[in-house]
Amino acid sequence: MMNEFELIEKYFTRSPRRAKLGVGDDCAIIAPASDMELAVTTDTLISGRHFFPFVDPRKLGHKALAVSLSDLAAMGATPRYFTLALSLPKVDEDWLQEFSRGLFNLADSFHCELIGGDTTCGPLSITITAIGELRKPFVLRRDAARAGDDIWISGTLGDAALALRVLNKQAKLPEASFAYVADRLEQPLPRVALGAALRPLAHAAIDISDGLIGDLKHILDRSGVGAEVWLECIPVSEVMSSQPLEVQYECALAGGDDYELCFTARPNNRNEIEAAGKEVGVRLTRVGHISGGEELRLLDKNGQSAQQLLQQMGLQSYDHFA
Amino acid sequence: MMNEFELIEKYFTRSPRRAKLGVGDDCAIIAPASDMELAVTTDTLISGRHFFPFVDPRKLGHKALAVSLSDLAAMGATPRYFTLALSLPKVDEDWLQEFSRGLFNLADSFHCELIGGDTTCGPLSITITAIGELRKPFVLRRDAARAGDDIWISGTLGDAALALRVLNKQAKLPEASFAYVADRLEQPLPRVALGAALRPLAHAAIDISDGLIGDLKHILDRSGVGAEVWLECIPVSEVMSSQPLEVQYECALAGGDDYELCFTARPNNRNEIEAAGKEVGVRLTRVGHISGGEELRLLDKNGQSAQQLLQQMGLQSYDHFA
Repeated sequence: MMNEFELIEKYFTRSPRRAKLGVGDDCAIIAPASDMELAVTTDTLISGRHFFPFVDPRKLGHKALAVSLSDLAAMGATPRYFTLALSLPKVDEDWLQEFSRGLFNLADSFHCELIGGDTTCGPLSITITAIGELRKPFVLRRDAARAGDDIWISGTLGDAALALRVLNKQAKLPEASFAYVADRLEQPLPRVALGAALRPLAHAAIDISDGLIGDLKHILDRSGVGAEVWLECIPVSEVMSSQPLEVQYECALAGGDDYELCFTARPNNRNEIEAAGKEVGVRLTRVGHISGGEELRLLDKNGQSAQQLLQQMGLQSYDHFA
Repeated sequence: MMNEFELIEKYFTRSPRRAKLGVGDDCAIIAPASDMELAVTTDTLISGRHFFPFVDPRKLGHKALAVSLSDLAAMGATPRYFTLALSLPKVDEDWLQEFSRGLFNLADSFHCELIGGDTTCGPLSITITAIGELRKPFVLRRDAARAGDDIWISGTLGDAALALRVLNKQAKLPEASFAYVADRLEQPLPRVALGAALRPLAHAAIDISDGLIGDLKHILDRSGVGAEVWLECIPVSEVMSSQPLEVQYECALAGGDDYELCFTARPNNRNEIEAAGKEVGVRLTRVGHISGGEELRLLDKNGQSAQQLLQQMGLQSYDHFA
């Protein structure tokens, strides 16, 4: 039976590249460049809550890192390092092989280096702390939205939530459609290049992990502003657009696991922002604007408040303890 | 019922001090000084494995951070920041109040700032990533021991393991003696000031978390050297010294949870090291020396090999998957 140190050596140890000291000492050591600040984020995925116990371990390795890189993207930071705390019920080498492959494939594509962590025996869960670099002075914070800003969304919303409904037998999809949304659920692509491109162009940003309504509210609360959002403009995929409107709204507004960016920027910057989206190959959609006050108003295509409709649908963002 | 964000706001959010951006955004932001490197370490504690489910939450908050600060101490790094990933089966406000108090009491005593994290619903576990500063060029690595170095130990070894035996009904102690070793188990004091003082004086260092034999072996393996350790010199507490010799050896050599430093240094530095120990108020004991070869030899008071005795006792360091 492989012990803890052999496991780390075999599956999670590589020569340090940018780091001065990597896996295998009491700490890793990194030497930040003098003109850089560091962004730090920690996320946990727990079996049975954030993913199905039977999920493909390679995809799980990808996703566990992707959710943290998505947080770095939302600050405009460039991923550099991460630590991995992995709790495993038992040593399953096939599982470890695939998990580490998925993890390192994504890590390598962003030149993001595993520098340390902890491996323990316990219920399956994964906690990753990712560290990114930010060149001063630009950073995308949640508290920087200003009245008059446009509100933008990257990509499309709700696909992951739709996939989850199918997996939970609450919805059905043709095979190819399911494959598309399942991929969005299991292998999200963090919007790192977009975040970096937006730093000089946008005011506030957040990554949408708990649903648009809830995450946009974080921006509004922290910035002390309100917003109007046009329901008709919320970007959805072709697969999603074939669903009943109620499903579309529920998934796109309060679904979670999107890992798209929601950001605000001056209307003056529209052309540059659209050019940045083209440059990095990500669809960008304006869905509303920041207003005075503190209210989040959802408007239908006639400009009427859709608040009541949404309340009837019981929409809210994902709450881990609800 | 308190939701995730209210919980974070109430128990884990404070104004940032050194950090440029703390809890509450997608990432924290820190601005490292230009002459500093950063040490990064991640540790997980799982209920039922690393601590008893009924442990005092205030002590648990202390210990969860202490084990990470001990890793920083072993590099000679000064604690600055940490993130907290907390998985909780339910929201228990009394528990959270006490846990956060224990956590922040220790954090404040080291001016170490909580900058972010994640709170999830799941089996009770705690993962902390701590970040410390290291002024170039000194750092205490595991791979820096050299033949001829003295081997030193801080404090005393085995007390935590003895406490665990009592809790597991494998041993008995008078009340006051148990209180002493229980405190060593539940509220270890990371040797941060000692680690910092040793940076210019020591070669290799490690914190003893899995037992002296196993952790010293990490130094030997990484440094490509061997060692002779004198059993008679292993420092033990007064409580421990009243135990049968076999218990003393088992607890002090392979007990785990000591959070003392084991380090190596040139014999020339003995006086300065002893002065450093006095300065920071930590007992330091020479227990052997680094030799050529790759063997760890344990010697009894007659200079005879005690290897066989220890093998009979089945001594090995703690393996999380054993």
